[in-house]
Amino acid sequence: MTERGWIEVLPTEVCERLLAREEVGRVAVIVDGHPEVFPVNYRWDGDAVVFRTDEGTKLHASLSWPSVAFEVDDFDRSTHSGWSVLVVGRAEEIPGWKRTPQPQPWATGVKSHIVRIVPTQVTGRRLPLPLVNAVDSLAADGG
Amino acid sequence: MTERGWIEVLPTEVCERLLAREEVGRVAVIVDGHPEVFPVNYRWDGDAVVFRTDEGTKLHASLSWPSVAFEVDDFDRSTHSGWSVLVVGRAEEIPGWKRTPQPQPWATGVKSHIVRIVPTQVTGRRLPLPLVNAVDSLAADGG
Repeated sequence: MTERGWIEVLPTEVCERLLAREEVGRVAVIVDGHPEVFPVNYRWDGDAVVFRTDEGTKLHASLSWPSVAFEVDDFDRSTHSGWSVLVVGRAEEIPGWKRTPQPQPWATGVKSHIVRIVPTQVTGRRLPLPLVNAVDSLAADGG
Repeated sequence: MTERGWIEVLPTEVCERLLAREEVGRVAVIVDGHPEVFPVNYRWDGDAVVFRTDEGTKLHASLSWPSVAFEVDDFDRSTHSGWSVLVVGRAEEIPGWKRTPQPQPWATGVKSHIVRIVPTQVTGRRLPLPLVNAVDSLAADGG
């Protein structure tokens, strides 16, 4: 039996460390009046989320609205723990290929457009390992 | 060196099997004119995504717009492979606790509101294990 845990709010600096550590996130944009969600390879450049994309819905919708959302998370089914970080901000295209670090997409395609999401809001939440599990782990370790 | 892979479109029945297998997804809603993304524990009831929530932004925004999005995915950093499924549909609150299967939230809270997202669109994409990796794996196995 896995107990349910309390959600904790993450400080901004922890959110930024998590953004810097991951490489797959999800861009949410508004298309035809409803949200859509696209997984992307990205890099956190210290101030903003950077991803590469081809011509298409993701690019057009990102640049058409004042704000988009970007989410990263990691959850563990066995312990019912995890975290998520949400960035809300303005998407802008970066002309040329000058900016580093360059995100490296896993999928093929030219992906010649580089988009940067400059956050107006970075929030994060954590669902820690429930205490009962932590105690069980200690017991299993002979602690 | 990991090669980049070609994206494949998943048939709807595969998307539905993936939806049935997972238990954490992300609801995307429109809040103050921009998208926001919230991880949720959910169940696929065979026809729709079902999740539980408390009073708040997620509930209010879900029910205020004609359509919301729901996304599940799984990616492997070591092989650069993975998949994602996107559901777009209308969110509706289910009165009472009658509906089964009930999603079991990992986080504490009453979460007395049950929301069902009835799909108007289910799409999925897969980034398969690149061929070069598959060949490397065979070689490593002595194949």
